[in-house]
Order: sequence, then structure tokens, then C-alpha cells
Amino acid sequence: MDIEIITTGNELMSGLTLDTNFRWAADRLTYLGFHLRYHTTTGDDEEAIINSFNIAEKRSKAVLVSGGLGPTPDDLTAEVASKYFGVPLELNDSALEMLERIFRERGRELLEINKKQAYLPKGSRILENFWGTAPGFQFDKGEVVFFFLPGVPKEFRSMIEEYVIPELDRKNKARKRHKAILIKTFGLRESEVAERLKGFQGTGIEIGYRSHFPEIHLRITAKAKYQAVANRLLKETKAEIVRRLDYYVFSTSGEMLEEVVGKLLRQKKMTISIAESCTGGLVAHRITNIPGSSDYFERGVVTYSNRSKEKMLRISHHLIETKGAVSAEVVECMAEGVRKLANTDLGIGISGIAGPGGGTVEKPVGTVFIGISDKSKGTFSKRFKFRGSREEVKLISSEAALDWIRKFILNDV
Amino acid sequence: MDIEIITTGNELMSGLTLDTNFRWAADRLTYLGFHLRYHTTTGDDEEAIINSFNIAEKRSKAVLVSGGLGPTPDDLTAEVASKYFGVPLELNDSALEMLERIFRERGRELLEINKKQAYLPKGSRILENFWGTAPGFQFDKGEVVFFFLPGVPKEFRSMIEEYVIPELDRKNKARKRHKAILIKTFGLRESEVAERLKGFQGTGIEIGYRSHFPEIHLRITAKAKYQAVANRLLKETKAEIVRRLDYYVFSTSGEMLEEVVGKLLRQKKMTISIAESCTGGLVAHRITNIPGSSDYFERGVVTYSNRSKEKMLRISHHLIETKGAVSAEVVECMAEGVRKLANTDLGIGISGIAGPGGGTVEKPVGTVFIGISDKSKGTFSKRFKFRGSREEVKLISSEAALDWIRKFILNDV
Repeated sequence: MDIEIITTGNELMSGLTLDTNFRWAADRLTYLGFHLRYHTTTGDDEEAIINSFNIAEKRSKAVLVSGGLGPTPDDLTAEVASKYFGVPLELNDSALEMLERIFRERGRELLEINKKQAYLPKGSRILENFWGTAPGFQFDKGEVVFFFLPGVPKEFRSMIEEYVIPELDRKNKARKRHKAILIKTFGLRESEVAERLKGFQGTGIEIGYRSHFPEIHLRITAKAKYQAVANRLLKETKAEIVRRLDYYVFSTSGEMLEEVVGKLLRQKKMTISIAESCTGGLVAHRITNIPGSSDYFERGVVTYSNRSKEKMLRISHHLIETKGAVSAEVVECMAEGVRKLANTDLGIGISGIAGPGGGTVEKPVGTVFIGISDKSKGTFSKRFKFRGSREEVKLISSEAALDWIRKFILNDV
Repeated sequence: MDIEIITTGNELMSGLTLDTNFRWAADRLTYLGFHLRYHTTTGDDEEAIINSFNIAEKRSKAVLVSGGLGPTPDDLTAEVASKYFGVPLELNDSALEMLERIFRERGRELLEINKKQAYLPKGSRILENFWGTAPGFQFDKGEVVFFFLPGVPKEFRSMIEEYVIPELDRKNKARKRHKAILIKTFGLRESEVAERLKGFQGTGIEIGYRSHFPEIHLRITAKAKYQAVANRLLKETKAEIVRRLDYYVFSTSGEMLEEVVGKLLRQKKMTISIAESCTGGLVAHRITNIPGSSDYFERGVVTYSNRSKEKMLRISHHLIETKGAVSAEVVECMAEGVRKLANTDLGIGISGIAGPGGGTVEKPVGTVFIGISDKSKGTFSKRFKFRGSREEVKLISSEAALDWIRKFILNDV
């Protein structure tokens, strides 16, 4: 069953917005074993949209259309669909009820402009929007099913999960069983990962690489006629890949590094505090993105100025003057200082030169020191040299810090 | 002159790779005043590629095809093109020379597999590749020009600049002159922005909306036969839009909010410090993403635990017990506390319930208090109620804080 995706919007055709919906849907549908064959993008351009509907109807069995369901005048999709299907737009009672409920719950007035969203082509099935005000809809034209979905990524995704996939499954009972996992690594280049996996390729196994800066992800897909066979294949493959990539693998279940670190801290009943300079709060931000992180994250300090390092962390003015704020000695004092200040089990210190300015011959842009201080094991530091823009250096520094925390705790077993 | 882009590759159709070529080309061509009307994506699938060529030839005057020019067996494009155009593949002497030169320069042997890249459809014009080994080519079929470009972004882009744009310019002398700007707003919903702009639409002006959570962006494009006319149109439109949207507009030149705030602080020679609870370091992270922010950002504290609020910011245990850590009183103390600790002109305090847990009837998830303390004007706070996931509440809280700093400084004029 060939599936086609049509994304619409002037913001896409003019390059204003990067289309992430198509990629997400392609990933999700491929993972589930569906066959996506075409993707078309057009602007908010009636003739081009109708032309795309017409082409899609001839070559595909299911068409997912995204965008153009909002309240503004450039949102044309429902109107164009009604013309294309040759049915009038009519006020859909369920859609209006949904809108009234949403606006009531949000304490906002339902404006005339918003009511436009409740007009759908006659004969449509409404797809409820759990995250926004634009209802989606399904329209079956003969053998071909059209789904109309909002362009807002969160709304687009949830509607695909809730409505599109179950409906496609109902219409397509013969699809192959797939199982896929995402293995996440940090610390190796893509070519180094490939080198380590050389000569290894199971039958029925597909390995896809994806660079997700600063991580390398591997998508391992097992395909078989029976689910149990796919599962066994995948289990064996995973074990072999983890053996070859060793401790560079931080997750085999799609978790983020900050989640992995959070789980380890929780398991070991350890608490942590962070003193950041060049990362500017990014490590604390990532740690606190995880719900429940207040159980192990006590505090962070962003000691951007030298004065703040001296006053808050009791680092001697003399040390900073002689060694420099970006040095092994200073990050060790930062790690130990924040650990004592916060009275936590672990303390982390990070200082470096994120750029674009501030580099020297001895310490060029990208030079970063990370310190870890443990209540019982002592205080340690490492020097790194990263490449990239200011934001990339911040990101990879935060990653290196989190990854070191992970390894530090794991070796403590 | 309608232009169409066709991108090919299994890695795109399976969602493993995000297509950034289309967006780049769309942005570049739109900016130059070309009219991009369709974009199609297919896998490395002969039938689907031929079908796409056929459709494109009928509806467009120029077709840019990217991908499938490499040396491996799944690189089909030259072969498929030769079938489609009904001409044989033949060894192109210039292409072979180019390959031989590149391999010689890199000290590598030219293998049979690489020579494949020198076979182009008879009658093609070779497009030299300055960054890789795959030559591109141009083939004119009647009135329609096809460009075949490599999928590697750097190679794709440089070939468009070097060959495609000059050639399109030659064929399309009548293109209109464009000028576009990006207006960024925060604090209004998309429908509210539209409501305020209702009834306003200049001739030759296009307004595109983009929701870039939590901001709403407007791209205003002016088209005219002469550049000077487009410039004037745009200037007038910008003035009218800023008048209607007022202080919700924080940038008319594409700047990020943290850049705008940074520039204002620098202009006013003010320094700032931040005490964050629910945002967990995100405000400090955003501020320090801007090069040179150490000139005005003195320090941040992420006082996640109550104990850290008491010890670092000298907030009384009693106040936190009676008013709660999420309260106007506590954020005012946080703002004032960090300002005094850091000895800065401004101090910011943020405390809230990012969720998913921790909400109460009086203070549900999404309740956030922000405080600003100014050395001479005193200390103020506001209560907000945001909606969304944990990460969204963090993001919109950081935005609200930065936006309030912006307005606070501007009113000080």
C-alpha cells in the first residue's frame, strides 16, 4: 500500500520553515513497516494543491496532507479539499463543540475567525486535536483515503498516532513485522563507528546511521514475516553491537543522556550540584529537563565572571590569576567548591573557551576543562579540545560532562 | 517561470535523514525572486523518479534534481535520466578529466566504480563539482531545463550558486525584484496577530506567518519590477505592522530575543544576574549563547532546592514556608538577592511549576512567577499561567523573562 505525504505552506516553499513533519512521519511510518513512496510540497496555492491531490489520488492508496488548517486567510486546505472532492463545506457540529470546549477551558472568547476551523468538507470524519484548535479530518474518495492534518508538529504527530496509524493498519493487514531500536553513542565519529561494525551484518537486519550532533545514533531494524523472529534477530544484533561499541553506547532504548544520568543518580541515591562557566547553565538546564530531577539536583551556579568564582566558590584570586580561569586547577576548585557549598555527593565544574573570541595559542577556542569532585573518592579533571561554533562547543561540553558523570557512576559499581 | 525541486534518496524516504537541501534552495531562490512551486521527494526508486520527471516536465520550466550521482549501485540518477530523455549514457571527456584531476590531487587511485560518475546522458552539459567527485549536469528538454545536482549539501549549494542561478537568470530576464524581512513577536497568539493585521494588505506585499514556539514570526515580502519600489513598499509595510503590533514586536531584523536583550544591556551599560528555579539554567544558557555576553552577564544561580534559595539568596525559611517557593514574595527576594550578591544593576528571579507533577488547585502546573529587581527603581513581580509540556513551560518562562527585561529597559528611556 503506497503512502504519499503532501505538506503545504508558503513558509515551506519560501524556505522560511524547515519541514520536520515529513521526516518525522517518514521515520515513524517506515519503522512500522509502511511503504512511503512520494512526498510533495506546495505553497498555499490552490491550483498547485489541487494538482497534487489529483496526482496523489492516482498513484497512492493513502494521502496525508499537512498544513493550512489554521484560522488565518492563507489557510486554504479545507476549502480546496471541498472543491477537489466536489462537496460543500459545512459547519461540523463535533468540530464546533470541540472548539467551544477548548476556548471555554482556556477562558478565551471564540472569535468568528476561529469558527472558520469548524467548516469541513461534507462527509468528512473529524480527527480531534488534543493540542491545538485546528480539527483534522479524514475523507475517503473511492479506494483512496485522505487525511488532513495540522502543520504544527505536536498536533501533526499526535493525530498520526491517534488516528492515521490505526486506520492505515485496518486497511493494510499484510504489512511485514518490523522491530527497530535506536542505539545512541557519544565519543566516536561516524567513520569510527562504521569501522568497529565492519564485517558485521545479519540477514534481515538494516543498520542506518544518523549524526545527531554531538551523538551518533544507529537505527537497527529487523524485518521478518513473524514478529517473534524479528524480535530474536534484533536482540542478537543489539548484543553484538554493544559488545563492539562498548561504553560509547549510552542508551539502547532511545533515552536522552540526561535521562540516563538521572536514573543512575536516583539508583545510587546520589545528589549532584554543578558550577558552570562556558556552558552558561546548559548542563543544569538539561538535567532539570527531566521530571523529578529535584530529587538529585540540588543547585547550580553559573559563575561567569571571575569575581563570582572567587566569591561563590571560594576560589583564590591568586589561583585564577596564575593558572587562568580556564585550567585544570580552577575547574577542580569549582567542582569541589560547589559540592561543599551544596553539600551534595558529586560536584561538577566546567570552564572553557566557547568562542568565537578569547582563544590563545596555548588555549585555543574549544579548549574546555571539566572537573568532578566526589565526597569520598576525591577530585579529578580532564582537558578537552572541541571544534565548532560557540553553541556547538557549549553543547558538546555539556555532553562530555554528562557522559563523564555516567561513566564515573558506572565504574563505582 | 515555475521552478520545481526533486530530491531523491532512500535515506530521506525512511526518515533517517532530514532534507536540508530543499529548504536552503527554497530560501535562496525565493530571496532572489524566483518562483518555486513544487517540491517532490522520492526514494532511489526508478519508477518513482521517472514518474516525477514526467510530472515536473509538464508543469515547470526548470527542474532541480538532487541526489543519486554517487558511485554506489543505489545511485541511479544518471541512468534514469538517460532512459527518461531517450539518449544513451556516454563517457563525458570533461567529466573524466575532472575525476582524474581530483583523484590525482588527493593521491588516490581512480577505481572503475568511480569512473561510473563520468557517464552522463548524451547531450548534457557538465557542471563542475568544486567540493566532491560527483559531476553535476544540465539537460535541456525542449523548453524545460533539468539540472542534476549532488545530494551532499555543500556540493549542492555551490553548484546552485555557480551554475543554476546564472542559467536561470539568463532564461528568465523578467523576474521580479524581491525584498523580505522577518518580524518577530512574542505575547500574541497567531490569531491575535492576524486580527490586528486585519484589513491591511498592501499591493505587492506577501505576509507569511510562522509559529516558532513561543514566538510568532512574520515574513514580509515585497515584490516589484524595480528594486527601489520593492524597498519602499517594504519600508512602509514594516512601519504599519510595527504600529499595529506595537511592543509585541521585539525584532524586525531576524535577531533572537536574547540578542536584542544583550544589545539593550550593552547600550545602557547595565549588568545583570539571574536566579532561576523552574527554568533550571535556561535563561542563563540563552543569554550566554550570545558572544560577548560576559560584558553584561555577571552570574546565574540555579536555586533548585529550598535550602539553596535560603543559603545563597538569604531568603528566610519562614517566608518560603508561609508563601511557598512559587510565590510573588519569593521571586522578588530571589531577584533582589541575586542582584545584591552579584552587585549588578538588574537581578531576575524565576520560580514556577514546570510539571508534570507538583501542581495544586491554587497553583496548577504552568504557574510561574517572575521578579525583576532594579538598583534604583525597586523590585517588581508578575504571575503567569503557561500551558504545555515541562520543556515548553521552561521555554516560555525563559522567553517571558527575557521579554520583560527588554520592556523594562525600553521604558527606562
